[in-house]
Amino acid sequence: MVFWGLEVKPGKPQSYDPKVEQGKVHVTQATLGQGLGKGSSVIQCSKGDKTPIYLCSLLPNKTECCPLNLEFDDDDETVEFSVTGDRSIHLSGYLEEYDQ
Amino acid sequence: MVFWGLEVKPGKPQSYDPKVEQGKVHVTQATLGQGLGKGSSVIQCSKGDKTPIYLCSLLPNKTECCPLNLEFDDDDETVEFSVTGDRSIHLSGYLEEYDQ
Amino acid sequence: MVFWGLEVKPGKPQSYDPKVEQGKVHVTQATLGQGLGKGSSVIQCSKGDKTPIYLCSLLPNKTECCPLNLEFDDDDETVEFSVTGDRSIHLSGYLEEYDQ
Amino acid sequence: MVFWGLEVKPGKPQSYDPKVEQGKVHVTQATLGQGLGKGSSVIQCSKGDKTPIYLCSLLPNKTECCPLNLEFDDDDETVEFSVTGDRSIHLSGYLEEYDQ
Amino acid sequence: MVFWGLEVKPGKPQSYDPKVEQGKVHVTQATLGQGLGKGSSVIQCSKGDKTPIYLCSLLPNKTECCPLNLEFDDDDETVEFSVTGDRSIHLSGYLEEYDQ
Repeated sequence: MVFWGLEVKPGKPQSYDPKVEQGKVHVTQATLGQGLGKGSSVIQCSKGDKTPIYLCSLLPNKTECCPLNLEFDDDDETVEFSVTGDRSIHLSGYLEEYDQ
Repeated sequence: MVFWGLEVKPGKPQSYDPKVEQGKVHVTQATLGQGLGKGSSVIQCSKGDKTPIYLCSLLPNKTECCPLNLEFDDDDETVEFSVTGDRSIHLSGYLEEYDQ
Repeated sequence: MVFWGLEVKPGKPQSYDPKVEQGKVHVTQATLGQGLGKGSSVIQCSKGDKTPIYLCSLLPNKTECCPLNLEFDDDDETVEFSVTGDRSIHLSGYLEEYDQ
Repeated sequence: MVFWGLEVKPGKPQSYDPKVEQGKVHVTQATLGQGLGKGSSVIQCSKGDKTPIYLCSLLPNKTECCPLNLEFDDDDETVEFSVTGDRSIHLSGYLEEYDQ
Repeated sequence: MVFWGLEVKPGKPQSYDPKVEQGKVHVTQATLGQGLGKGSSVIQCSKGDKTPIYLCSLLPNKTECCPLNLEFDDDDETVEFSVTGDRSIHLSGYLEEYDQ
């Protein structure tokens, strides 16, 4: 196991290629980043040219974190995470190494 | 693993046949879609002619996402997801491929 | 896997015998049913003559759903689910068939 | 699997010895008990003479239940659950029998 | 299994080396500690010289606890947990002993 984290900032989509990791990634939490914005921040995931899917929506001073349960491994294509809203979203979880 | 997502819009029930997938689907999150509606949006699942069961109820500006834990595979019949309320609901999760 | 759901109405306790199922039941979510009641609805589970245990408490317009994680299989005795409050509670999850 | 539950009342700490069970206990939910108290109720767990650790904090009319994920088995020493606040907290989950 | 807990106080980062444990640690919950502070408390995790990642953000009298799902084992480097805000955060979970 290795701790895994990624901060996604508003307006700065991040490509994520699960093949670069040495194991299966478990994304288990989303937490609102710092900032003064009061509107919701939504993190989306898209694959290829498909419509993005919302992963969670966080609300300052109301619901600032939410458990997730996503897994990515070698069979996955690159996905793109993006955030809309005023504040970044931190994804966290852990990496389960492949057997050697 | 493959990222999996589905947006269900209000008044547009969607049949979902788990047999079309190449693996077991883990539905792990529901998130409220865009819109200005202020009432709750509820996603339901029904199988055959049985009474629909509510899967979760999301509230704009209060609770906009909720973890789920549903699994579907080859043994499942087609189910129908439907949303009541003003806004769509995004389901997300991942596909665990069958061994080959 | 087979989708599993059960609506429990206030004042109408429901016996549930896990032995009637062809597999292990995973109860993974509780969602508030329709209605105008504004007080909390609580779902309880009791076994034999033991004191009922609260499984979750849902609040209209505040917290209308909650993840659960209960498993029932052939080794379980019959339990009784009951709801106190104004509105029904929908339990959902999935059935993991026994190997054949 | 066997349904498992325990109500812990304020000011009445309960010793819990996992060795008395015929299996591994999965504690998966905490729910606020009945009462009129409006302040938070906190459930703690302590082991031997170590400082108690808070397991969750429930708020009447705001957050009356919370998923947990604790496991206890034969290797565990006795722990003590205690509740501070006005209302009891119900723990629920299931027992996974040891293979025989 | 052994109950596992750690209180992290504001302004007092704690190094945590998973190698000192006799098993894999499952960190499954975060709960706000005692205090009168009314602002949010955020717990972060950092590894080496990487940017800290937010694990969750708790709000007094609104959201005082949150499920987590992190795993640490022998393959992990030392991480550092730190809390910003007025109140401490209690992490809890369990230790799954390594086979002997």
